Amino acid sequence: MSRSPGRKQENHKISRELFVLTYGALVAQLCKDYEKDEDVNACLDRMGYSIGIRLIDDFLARSAVKKCRSYSETADMIAQVAFKMYLGVTPSVSCSSASGNEFSLILDKNPLVDFVEELPAERASLCYCNLLCGVIRGALEMVHLAAEVSFLQDRLKGDAVTEIGITFLRKPEDRKHRR
Amino acid sequence: MSRSPGRKQENHKISRELFVLTYGALVAQLCKDYEKDEDVNACLDRMGYSIGIRLIDDFLARSAVKKCRSYSETADMIAQVAFKMYLGVTPSVSCSSASGNEFSLILDKNPLVDFVEELPAERASLCYCNLLCGVIRGALEMVHLAAEVSFLQDRLKGDAVTEIGITFLRKPEDRKHRR
Repeated sequence: MSRSPGRKQENHKISRELFVLTYGALVAQLCKDYEKDEDVNACLDRMGYSIGIRLIDDFLARSAVKKCRSYSETADMIAQVAFKMYLGVTPSVSCSSASGNEFSLILDKNPLVDFVEELPAERASLCYCNLLCGVIRGALEMVHLAAEVSFLQDRLKGDAVTEIGITFLRKPEDRKHRR
Repeated sequence: MSRSPGRKQENHKISRELFVLTYGALVAQLCKDYEKDEDVNACLDRMGYSIGIRLIDDFLARSAVKKCRSYSETADMIAQVAFKMYLGVTPSVSCSSASGNEFSLILDKNPLVDFVEELPAERASLCYCNLLCGVIRGALEMVHLAAEVSFLQDRLKGDAVTEIGITFLRKPEDRKHRR
């Protein structure tokens, strides 16, 4: 990474539209490259992971957040600080398990799909925004939190909201449970 | 395009880092897909073109700019309004021909290459940011200005600055000249 020393003072904000359209071009290219939606989804997740493990440094430096003391705090941090910082939106957070390690980020509006009307019929299994799951997974891993991240609902597929599920796998009992 | 009516009031800004890393993933994917740098460059240009012809509506709506009366005004508009709006930087502009239809946008710092150190040796002909050329070309075409847009210098290739050349082809004498 080649960060110039004066970088902190710079304008870190850009217009969302260019990002959204560029992301669309990326997904379209992957749809050309891979016939199966599952392969596109996996590729977006892998790309996101690579982005997440690099983005976390930027996040920690710019947000100056303290270490989270619970999964719940971590989920709130992702929604209220990270999403706000990188995508300009704040999903709501809900805890979806009694064991306290499963959370949902719920987006009334997904900023990445501004220019997308709906998925083509032949791409019904595509998780269009799967890059985001990979980013979250990669970033969490860099702060020593293993997690599974996936879309549980998607407005592009006709759901009422877009919902990203995060399951933290850090505790030994969770790992056991997962096996 | 599915733009919600309340869109104007929304936050259109996102963090540049996520865009820069996502763009990097796109270029990396194209480098996997195409062996020749020229094919990657052409693909980035085509993608940019498709983005430009969609982005122009957004630009005209949000910038509320008046019709430009000269190529010079148009070049200034691209640098001072469009680059500022979409990438958060303002290139300097110079006119590089006596006929007044060739301009250079000069970027001391290219915001798209924040995380790129240098091009790999085997990718020496890659125009990493060629998407931008396509975006400019596509957007100009939608306001009835035919142009050739390409990188003339690139800091990624060791040049002192990054320079994007725009040659307007609208005037009949230019077209004749080009033939």
